[in-house]
Amino acid sequence: MNVDEKYFSNITKRERAIFEGGISMGALFHQFVGTPVNQKTKENLERSIEESFKLQPCIENVEVKINLTDNTEFDYISLSGDMLDVRIHTVIDDVKAIIRIEFIEELNYPLMYVEDI
Amino acid sequence: MNVDEKYFSNITKRERAIFEGGISMGALFHQFVGTPVNQKTKENLERSIEESFKLQPCIENVEVKINLTDNTEFDYISLSGDMLDVRIHTVIDDVKAIIRIEFIEELNYPLMYVEDI
Amino acid sequence: MNVDEKYFSNITKRERAIFEGGISMGALFHQFVGTPVNQKTKENLERSIEESFKLQPCIENVEVKINLTDNTEFDYISLSGDMLDVRIHTVIDDVKAIIRIEFIEELNYPLMYVEDI
Amino acid sequence: MNVDEKYFSNITKRERAIFEGGISMGALFHQFVGTPVNQKTKENLERSIEESFKLQPCIENVEVKINLTDNTEFDYISLSGDMLDVRIHTVIDDVKAIIRIEFIEELNYPLMYVEDI
Repeated sequence: MNVDEKYFSNITKRERAIFEGGISMGALFHQFVGTPVNQKTKENLERSIEESFKLQPCIENVEVKINLTDNTEFDYISLSGDMLDVRIHTVIDDVKAIIRIEFIEELNYPLMYVEDI
Repeated sequence: MNVDEKYFSNITKRERAIFEGGISMGALFHQFVGTPVNQKTKENLERSIEESFKLQPCIENVEVKINLTDNTEFDYISLSGDMLDVRIHTVIDDVKAIIRIEFIEELNYPLMYVEDI
Repeated sequence: MNVDEKYFSNITKRERAIFEGGISMGALFHQFVGTPVNQKTKENLERSIEESFKLQPCIENVEVKINLTDNTEFDYISLSGDMLDVRIHTVIDDVKAIIRIEFIEELNYPLMYVEDI
Repeated sequence: MNVDEKYFSNITKRERAIFEGGISMGALFHQFVGTPVNQKTKENLERSIEESFKLQPCIENVEVKINLTDNTEFDYISLSGDMLDVRIHTVIDDVKAIIRIEFIEELNYPLMYVEDI
C-alpha cells in the first residue's frame, strides 16, 4: 500500500509539512510535561527529547531548550509547558516548515505556531 | 495583541485548521497512552478525553472510541495507541477539517491523517 | 504461579499496602499532569481519574479533587501537580492505608505521604 | 517545618524506603510510556530517565534498561511498559531498598515489586 497516496493525496505538501509538525509538537508537549528536571539534568533531557521526536515521520530536526527560572543545582521541578522553547523542522519533498512553541509574555501561555514555511 | 494576525497570518485558514487538529491529535495520543482502562471504565474515559481536548483552540468536536480486544470485565490494560479511534473536528471561520487516528491493519500501526477538509 | 508468595513474601501486608498506594499515586500524578481542564470539565476528569486508578492492584477507592484557582468558565489550563488533592485507599487483607497528595503552602509543592494506616 | 517529623513519623524508615520507591516507579512508568524510541535513541533515553528520577526524594540510584524486540535501526516504536526493566534504589538513613519492574512471562505483564530491602 502506498500510504501517502491513499491517506495524504487530499492535502498539499505544504499542508502535510504543517500537519506533521503540529502532531509532533502536541505530542512532545504532552509526553514530557511533568518530568522531573533541574540545571544538572536539563541538557541531557533536551537532547533526549530531540532524539525521540526526530524519529517521527517527516521530522528533519528538533531543537529543544528548557528555560529554568530556578538556578539552584540541587532542587528540581516538574517540567511545564511554560519552560519549553522548541523548534520542529519538518520536510516533505522540497517543502520545509519550522513549527515553534515558546512562552509569550503578553499571552501568559506557551503558543504553538508556524514560524517559517 | 491580535494573536492571529501576529502569529498566523503566514498560513491559510485551511492550513490553520490542519495545524490545530494535528497538535491536538498528537497531544491527545501522548497524554492518555498508559492510562489504566477496561470495559467498565472505557466509556467515561472516552468522554473525559473528548471533553479535555474540546477545550483546545479551534476544536469544534472530538469523538473518541477505545477498542478493547480484551472482553474481561475485571482485568485491565494500559491504553495504547493501537486502541485509539479518534476524530478531531477543527474549525477556522468557514473552514472545517476532520483529523483522524485509526489503527491500519496493513501498516500495523495507528495512522494520523486528514480525513476530510 | 502464586505471585504474592513469589514476589511479595519479603514485605509485610502493611508495607505492601504502602507500596501499592505509592505506585498508584506516582502513576496518577505523571499520567494526568498536562491534561487540559477548566471548571466545566473538572468533575468528569476527576471521576475518570478515580475510575482509572481504582483498576490498579490492591486499590479499594480513589478520591480526586482538582483545585482550580481560575474561575473562568471558558478558558482552560494544563493540569499541574499543585492542583491535585487525592486520596488513594489501599487494602491488603485486613490492612488498610490511605495515601495522600496535597499542596502544602509552607513547602510550596504537592507532598505525597501516608495519611492513615 | 520539619517535613519528616510532621508527615512521616507514622511510618518506619523501612516503610518510607518502600513508599518513595513505589512512588517513583509508578511515576517513571506513566511519565515515559508512549515516548518514541528505537535502537539508536534507546541508550540516551535510558540515561535521561535515570537522571530525571534520581532527582526525586530519597532516590540513591536508578538503573533503566529498555528491551527492544525490534532490531531495525530506522523504524521506531512507542515505549510500552512491557519493555521496561528498571531498578530504583532508595535510601532512608541506614535502610536501603531496591524497587524493580520487569516483564514476567508467566504473568504476561510488567510487575513492580520490592526486589531487595
